[in-house]
Amino acid sequence: MGSNVNRSVLTVCISVHPFGDVNSQPLNLLRDAGMHLIMNPLNRRLTESELTKFLGDANVLIAGTEPITDQVISNAPQLGLIARVGIGLDNVDLGAARNRGVTVTFTPDAPAPAVSELTCGMMLSLLRGIATADKAVRLGKWQRILGKRLGDLTVGVIGVGRVGCRVIEHLQGFGSHILANDLSPNPDLGTKFDIHWTSKEQIYQEADIVSLHVPLTPATRHLIGPIELASMKTEALLVNTSRGPVVDESSLVTALRGNQIGGAALDVFEQEPYSGELTTLDNCLLTCHMGSMSRDCRAQMENESVEEVLRYARGESPNQPVPMDYL
Amino acid sequence: MGSNVNRSVLTVCISVHPFGDVNSQPLNLLRDAGMHLIMNPLNRRLTESELTKFLGDANVLIAGTEPITDQVISNAPQLGLIARVGIGLDNVDLGAARNRGVTVTFTPDAPAPAVSELTCGMMLSLLRGIATADKAVRLGKWQRILGKRLGDLTVGVIGVGRVGCRVIEHLQGFGSHILANDLSPNPDLGTKFDIHWTSKEQIYQEADIVSLHVPLTPATRHLIGPIELASMKTEALLVNTSRGPVVDESSLVTALRGNQIGGAALDVFEQEPYSGELTTLDNCLLTCHMGSMSRDCRAQMENESVEEVLRYARGESPNQPVPMDYL
Repeated sequence: MGSNVNRSVLTVCISVHPFGDVNSQPLNLLRDAGMHLIMNPLNRRLTESELTKFLGDANVLIAGTEPITDQVISNAPQLGLIARVGIGLDNVDLGAARNRGVTVTFTPDAPAPAVSELTCGMMLSLLRGIATADKAVRLGKWQRILGKRLGDLTVGVIGVGRVGCRVIEHLQGFGSHILANDLSPNPDLGTKFDIHWTSKEQIYQEADIVSLHVPLTPATRHLIGPIELASMKTEALLVNTSRGPVVDESSLVTALRGNQIGGAALDVFEQEPYSGELTTLDNCLLTCHMGSMSRDCRAQMENESVEEVLRYARGESPNQPVPMDYL
Repeated sequence: MGSNVNRSVLTVCISVHPFGDVNSQPLNLLRDAGMHLIMNPLNRRLTESELTKFLGDANVLIAGTEPITDQVISNAPQLGLIARVGIGLDNVDLGAARNRGVTVTFTPDAPAPAVSELTCGMMLSLLRGIATADKAVRLGKWQRILGKRLGDLTVGVIGVGRVGCRVIEHLQGFGSHILANDLSPNPDLGTKFDIHWTSKEQIYQEADIVSLHVPLTPATRHLIGPIELASMKTEALLVNTSRGPVVDESSLVTALRGNQIGGAALDVFEQEPYSGELTTLDNCLLTCHMGSMSRDCRAQMENESVEEVLRYARGESPNQPVPMDYL
């Protein structure tokens, strides 16, 4: 359908939020190209039905992590391009997009530097009780927290792709002992960094910190469940900045309540916005899916997605189409 | 006076808190040597008068950061050794100790790894709003915070000694641009790490993060005052994990209130426990002098100080006496 539209007057729906906040360049580029822009009016992630109404006769969707289902796609007859701002594609029905001739692009490299830094920041904060101390000092309490040192610990990195690889690079500067697991271990990495490739099971048993950097797929859904949690050290920390459903949250709540593990730092949740039981627990650190939220990375992600829209308008092939094998 | 006591029945006052919490080995070593131990009964930093009463006829003080003044020392006639658990000596009247023949030892290397990690943790937390997000999520709010990336910034390290040097090492793993200043720049460091030695003034003007790692001396008291704050970038962050009085706190409050700088992360304060105006400001992160508070570093600090007590009891010279030029 994309080939039938008059590409000079494209209607572009921008559901991702924020967009254009860092600087207005991405929006200006689209406007200068004569496109009709419709911004997400709710300033939060849209639901499936909200997105369906929002899209209407749009030609292009600049998308975040909202559910882009078969229903959404089939109700948008003019849609020709979904430009995902980010890397995860678990929210996009890629089969439906292909069947309806809708191109899907993404920005797989751009968010990684911000995600890996947030991961290390959450590790250090949880290890030393930084957020807990800040809260206490503001309430007039002065109780020094005895923590642990990252450089003295074994960190297990599950998923050594764009993000996991950078986490390992950051950890080199601290001297942590690193266990790594990936479906396709990159042999070059072992020569560049001091890491030990091993099984997930060994990581659960030996790591002081288990950090998840896998995409959400049927194979990784509830990767961390009761069995994995039970096999971890009693003081182990779980860090998840990938996708919420990679962790079976109700099992995690049980494990944290029972002090089966030491704590958890979570940026992602099975249902977002999150407002569940974890908010009542002390031995966890909670942020709101803000892995990619550094100014430089958001700007890069926005620029790359806008470039895809401009290429689409000019009838050019996409720079970063989602690979066929992602289906 | 130390030479006149019967060293086999030493009375050892332990004012530092915590002590022996990580493991009981340090306390056991002292008890096994037949020493009479008196622990700080208040589980917090003692005031000058509390310390004076606490010391009584003690032969040895295992000390934290409480004020060990001329008055304290002159009222402890049997005191022969002050074993400081830590590095800072701003709380010890070294002249008074020398005049009264009291040996002072310290553990200058042991805390550094924990302090440098807390420093980086506070940088990352402040840059990405980790503590702010945790608080918000627990209150049912879900507002993603747009932050900055450490690897994209220029970090100015003032004081490149035991801690500053390690901070630089950690930052190498993030790729930050590093400006460094020290009274005696170590030329080897510039070949090992990618750093640029420069003046403090240039750091104030160019750094996105200014991190302080100097001892508290007459020369560094209020090193950061209104002039320095005014010369910083409007989005600059100030990080202080050294000693509170290195920063003129009332000027900092003014600068933060007026958004003259972007924010501050502070582990130390002019008066501790701290309960001042900073607790009401959003653009800062506050912890409670817990730089050295990792289990491994506390254990190392405690073991080193106990070793000094045992050496003193045996009439041996100290391992780590405070150098004469510290006077």
